[in-house]
Amino acid sequence: RHPYLGDGIGVNGKGFHGNALQHVNVNGSLYPAKVKSRRLRWDVKPSEMANNTLNPIRAIVDGMKLTPNPEKPMIALSIGDPTVFGNLPTDDAVIQAMKDAIDCQKYNGYAPSVGYLKSRQAVANFYSIPQAPLEAEDVILTSGCSQAIELAINVLCNPGDNILVPCPGFSLYKTLAVSVGIEVKLYNLLPEKSWEIDLQHLESMIDERTSCLIVTNPSNPCGSVFSKEHLQKILKVASKYCVPILADEIYSDMVRCSSPSLACLSSDVPILSCGGLAKRWLVPGWRLGWILIHDRNDIFGSKIRQGLVKLSQRILGACTIVQGALESILNNTPQSFYNNTISFLKSNSEICYNQLSLVPGLNPVMPSGAMYLMVGIDMDHFPDFTNDVDFTERLVTEQSVFCLPASAFEYPNFFRIVVTVPEELMLQACARIREFCQLHNLHAIAGSTYGYFCIKN
Amino acid sequence: RHPYLGDGIGVNGKGFHGNALQHVNVNGSLYPAKVKSRRLRWDVKPSEMANNTLNPIRAIVDGMKLTPNPEKPMIALSIGDPTVFGNLPTDDAVIQAMKDAIDCQKYNGYAPSVGYLKSRQAVANFYSIPQAPLEAEDVILTSGCSQAIELAINVLCNPGDNILVPCPGFSLYKTLAVSVGIEVKLYNLLPEKSWEIDLQHLESMIDERTSCLIVTNPSNPCGSVFSKEHLQKILKVASKYCVPILADEIYSDMVRCSSPSLACLSSDVPILSCGGLAKRWLVPGWRLGWILIHDRNDIFGSKIRQGLVKLSQRILGACTIVQGALESILNNTPQSFYNNTISFLKSNSEICYNQLSLVPGLNPVMPSGAMYLMVGIDMDHFPDFTNDVDFTERLVTEQSVFCLPASAFEYPNFFRIVVTVPEELMLQACARIREFCQLHNLHAIAGSTYGYFCIKN
Repeated sequence: RHPYLGDGIGVNGKGFHGNALQHVNVNGSLYPAKVKSRRLRWDVKPSEMANNTLNPIRAIVDGMKLTPNPEKPMIALSIGDPTVFGNLPTDDAVIQAMKDAIDCQKYNGYAPSVGYLKSRQAVANFYSIPQAPLEAEDVILTSGCSQAIELAINVLCNPGDNILVPCPGFSLYKTLAVSVGIEVKLYNLLPEKSWEIDLQHLESMIDERTSCLIVTNPSNPCGSVFSKEHLQKILKVASKYCVPILADEIYSDMVRCSSPSLACLSSDVPILSCGGLAKRWLVPGWRLGWILIHDRNDIFGSKIRQGLVKLSQRILGACTIVQGALESILNNTPQSFYNNTISFLKSNSEICYNQLSLVPGLNPVMPSGAMYLMVGIDMDHFPDFTNDVDFTERLVTEQSVFCLPASAFEYPNFFRIVVTVPEELMLQACARIREFCQLHNLHAIAGSTYGYFCIKN
Repeated sequence: RHPYLGDGIGVNGKGFHGNALQHVNVNGSLYPAKVKSRRLRWDVKPSEMANNTLNPIRAIVDGMKLTPNPEKPMIALSIGDPTVFGNLPTDDAVIQAMKDAIDCQKYNGYAPSVGYLKSRQAVANFYSIPQAPLEAEDVILTSGCSQAIELAINVLCNPGDNILVPCPGFSLYKTLAVSVGIEVKLYNLLPEKSWEIDLQHLESMIDERTSCLIVTNPSNPCGSVFSKEHLQKILKVASKYCVPILADEIYSDMVRCSSPSLACLSSDVPILSCGGLAKRWLVPGWRLGWILIHDRNDIFGSKIRQGLVKLSQRILGACTIVQGALESILNNTPQSFYNNTISFLKSNSEICYNQLSLVPGLNPVMPSGAMYLMVGIDMDHFPDFTNDVDFTERLVTEQSVFCLPASAFEYPNFFRIVVTVPEELMLQACARIREFCQLHNLHAIAGSTYGYFCIKN
């Protein structure tokens, strides 16, 4: 390599000085001189982590042409936020607890990174049952259930490990995992079995780098709720292969009939159960979540707990005002509040299911919890559309009804309906979906105003 | 290699089945059979990221024997939380803004991951100046300033890159960076120059993998504030080497005399300025922070902005109630509130500095902002103690006064005092520190009750 003399500057393709030895001329002799390498021009790029933080919902929705029919007001059945229509306010007891927490001025300073002990104790008391007892130290408060899931994945998995994720499933697991080099393996849910897990498929996915099994129950996007027997079978697989479970139970207790948690059925499998105030108390913006550590067989031991504490110190957790209100929120919200939400969601689910069951080419799956309903599309009935994204995009253009295409959950040819809209809007949306399907269904008799169909499914 | 037959199981040291081909006996012949590898026993360990999330303050404080003298009530000058003594409540306007945000029930749902537009606009308006104008889109709201710093580091740096961090400095930068494989290089601050940056040392640290220069101004732990001229010199170095700046300005405007922000002096260097409500509004627990994107020369361009948006979608940001109150908090907090805080901190800093200046063996450095004061220890005056950790530990044992040893900031033989305690406690703490030093100072005349010293420094 030819040495540089004087002001000669070697620049590589990235705009840096090379770090090569250069030479200085001292009394006629060349001596090597270490030359400081530095950037010669601005070249600031986002990190790999930022580039790899991919949100499939955004990727799909941002690519859709969402231009509603100007003659029909828009009805969005797409947003998993129960507060958007104003018909599901939180309870007065929740509001009062917040105002008391503000007034007392005791909750302005830093809380411990895992939350106030008294608030953790309140969560422990609220969720403790004889089969799965909880102490304050088993609870870690987080900035929303999203941070709970992030901490749980980050404490259990290294880059190169893999996690098992339901398909269809909530997209955040993949968003969080892939960006830090954790592989995602999808296991199938079975629509014909009310979205139970295909256990054989699940089992076939496990290998020696599987560090976490994510179970979402009740399910987003399916609205399904697993039976006790099915949960026991899931635990059996986890136990056989020694894989810990991340139980996303943010919709727990938002169910038609009582359903056990995974933890209360587990005798050996260690479980990190993620939850929060968001859905059951109807305040998703407040960002109060938690991890419940269930480890009755001492498999996590103190190390996973310490790992969670360390990770929680990165950005601290939930807003102290909400933390300060938490005990009162959990203890003073009347049972009638929860019951009212559930019966509203049940009624709306039934309306939606019943209406869409009548539509040839659509196969709604009756949900039993959470606030979602999945609808299968017999694509061969609808030659006008290439896939679920196309189908839902045109549903916006023609009928101003927006449902999320299930491609966003890696599950094509379905779409998801959020059942939190007011009843009247739910009925209207279903009528419009029906009209849309009648118009485009290959098997419908052309010209029939009342939609007589030659084939039902 | 000897093939296994029947139930023969090969187990490696980590408790997995080997993935080697095994053989099955079919009609007397051996056929290879793929054997599924799986874990045979529980072995759940925390991730490398969790293990590497190290908080030096905790590492040092947790190792200290902090047993106060039972005859003297404890005075903690160690906690960087202005709310702990109750003498610095937030303003009534702040409280009212929060209660209004709760009452209106408009802020219960999800906000955009970067925050409500109206709240971002309020921050932009509040911090915009002609030399460094800000629009709503230049503001990203976060879960406290810690998350602002995390997002800024994560968007600018890849594993293997390095960041430049002040020494002594806030420990969180290192905690966040090292755990994701980013190297930390410490540049020196100069106590004899009121903690200005040793610019030559800073420059010598920069190489082609330097992706971010962190500047903390005003400083934690030093309480120093850089002059306009010094800030311009820092910008010149960043400009010369094309290194973007992360400006930690959480203590901005908590200064004796007006001090410009880095952004208002920069014509080319792109800057992510991190701040929040925590310190100036005295509500660190509420977890409302922000990133102000200053990029007048379009060096970050749209890609860094998009990267920040993507990263913000991982766990979403601040509590919506605080976001909803933000505009009113910024616009309605009276100037007298800010002034009162500053004059209290000024008065307490002077008391502390003046008192400790009289103590032989101690070298306090007068601060001009934030809420801290650093004190050098002439260790050769105190042969009873091996270092600053030992010194501050014994100060607790004997005098029930707890100051943070500056080893927690990678700066041995200093300790940090938080000057937010009530004046009376500050005076008492200083008197006890003085007594402690008199007793242990080698150069003090033994038996002198009034502490006559043969040597002052």
